Amino acid sequence: MSREQARQALEQARRVAVATHITPDADAISSLIGLTQILRRLGKEAEPFCDDELPPRLRAIPHAEEISRAARGSFDLLVSLDASDPARLGRAFAEVREAPLLNIDHHITNTGFGTVNWVDPSAVATAEMVLWLADDLGVSLDRELASILLAGIVGDTMGLRTPNVTPQVLREVTRLVEAGASLPALVDVLFNRRSFAAIRLFGQALAGVRLEDGVIWTVVTREMRQTLGLGQANDLSLSSFLISAEEARIAAVFTERDDGKVEVSMRARPGYDVARVALAFGGGGHPPAAGCLVPGPLEEVIPPILSALKAAARDGRTDPSG
Amino acid sequence: MSREQARQALEQARRVAVATHITPDADAISSLIGLTQILRRLGKEAEPFCDDELPPRLRAIPHAEEISRAARGSFDLLVSLDASDPARLGRAFAEVREAPLLNIDHHITNTGFGTVNWVDPSAVATAEMVLWLADDLGVSLDRELASILLAGIVGDTMGLRTPNVTPQVLREVTRLVEAGASLPALVDVLFNRRSFAAIRLFGQALAGVRLEDGVIWTVVTREMRQTLGLGQANDLSLSSFLISAEEARIAAVFTERDDGKVEVSMRARPGYDVARVALAFGGGGHPPAAGCLVPGPLEEVIPPILSALKAAARDGRTDPSG
Repeated sequence: MSREQARQALEQARRVAVATHITPDADAISSLIGLTQILRRLGKEAEPFCDDELPPRLRAIPHAEEISRAARGSFDLLVSLDASDPARLGRAFAEVREAPLLNIDHHITNTGFGTVNWVDPSAVATAEMVLWLADDLGVSLDRELASILLAGIVGDTMGLRTPNVTPQVLREVTRLVEAGASLPALVDVLFNRRSFAAIRLFGQALAGVRLEDGVIWTVVTREMRQTLGLGQANDLSLSSFLISAEEARIAAVFTERDDGKVEVSMRARPGYDVARVALAFGGGGHPPAAGCLVPGPLEEVIPPILSALKAAARDGRTDPSG
Repeated sequence: MSREQARQALEQARRVAVATHITPDADAISSLIGLTQILRRLGKEAEPFCDDELPPRLRAIPHAEEISRAARGSFDLLVSLDASDPARLGRAFAEVREAPLLNIDHHITNTGFGTVNWVDPSAVATAEMVLWLADDLGVSLDRELASILLAGIVGDTMGLRTPNVTPQVLREVTRLVEAGASLPALVDVLFNRRSFAAIRLFGQALAGVRLEDGVIWTVVTREMRQTLGLGQANDLSLSSFLISAEEARIAAVFTERDDGKVEVSMRARPGYDVARVALAFGGGGHPPAAGCLVPGPLEEVIPPILSALKAAARDGRTDPSG
């Protein structure tokens, strides 16, 4: 438990580069901007980095436009947020002068790659850990900071729907809402916005849905997307929808990108683990929600991954800690 | 404000018949069983009634199996819960001896048909009002009562996603979770359970989705359902999904029942009102979520309702109180 070391490292730093992982989700951007704002309120120089494009829905988070792809020059502290291994940072810190690295994350799969590591899988989101840091550092919540941090908590809990939403998390959410954050507005932006074309794509993907050995799955091809004029941003939440099937224990969606690579989004019911399947194919995540990006073509990558998912649906989760 | 009168009427009664509306939703069953349990814990005789079948997902609420269709004999108090007019009770109280009627509801459209009326549209759910009654009557929350009441709050707020979820509501939810209710288990039962056949029906309905003048809509025919072996229980949440379309202000799903009647489920974005459209066609609800049941056939009922919905999508909401 190095929450105290994390606080000390941040308190002592003057010039800080903060980065989060590629293919950023709400928690990545929320914790990134949240910590940057907290450090600035303490009078420090702090710059946010993410070596990837932001999905449109995440650009609604205040200050998202200040994020750059990669840091340059010298900093006296580097901070990695919500990234389980250094490769997930892309080239965000590739051009920067050597400096101590503070690794803050809630993923149980975190490899502990920092100079100081604060990894707490009991946190529902890295943004929740940043909220604790705000308290530890004596930074008070205003409407903007509360909205930024609530985005990560809402994002990683699927809108307070995951089993790890304890009374403590609900009290934190209440505090953030009392400080002025809007829970329905965030849920609306993060989960309830799809283009009409995306809704039609959702329908087309459902037309090909299959259920095999406890695994419900479907495919979104490049052609399906392009016919509807849709880019490759995978915002359908289709795998979360598929796992609602009563007959399924695991759900997967294979989405073909423009470059032919295949994004695999996986979901599991409680007691089953897709994180280790994602990990085996170079990805990561949590037992109930994970993903990976694999080289195509679709017809070659589907059979081995499906086979691993069927095994996971048969075995259940053997690691009770996740 | 007759919360105090409601408390008095319940305190004085010894033998109480409690009823809720037909086509019951989670809040109907939650408030019905919740109040029945509270009265029994006070040593009173209390019986729950609902003159309709319960959808399978609502049978998971504790004590749901004790609900009967219609009351018989004599009671010294009748209570109507979550029903905006007496017709919504069906024949639940048709065979009962005359007695004072306590009308408890949070629908702004409530006609005030009781001897005592406690109608509070500021409540997110009638179950929330029953929670307040539990406090007023000095009945403490245990795990079972907390689970029963949380079901209604979760159900009517779409899992804490509606704009009326204030810090007060979040504090109440926290209390219920602290008392032992499981938020993720309720969300799972109420929103995340569909049969594989229902998921395929969802896909088929999306194949016919249309967007016209700000209204996104589709149809579920009897034939589509029957081909997939599905009954008429309308648990798809399809209209809630459709309102996620960025280009839409109003969403509607027309579902053909076995008897040829058509259930219309309507949703509106903030600032738009489908309750008055539903009301005009003999139904009811709230500005963002409403519904009605109309005689078929489909091809005759769709044009006038669609036309009213398009007008509502054009005008926005003129009544700011809803």
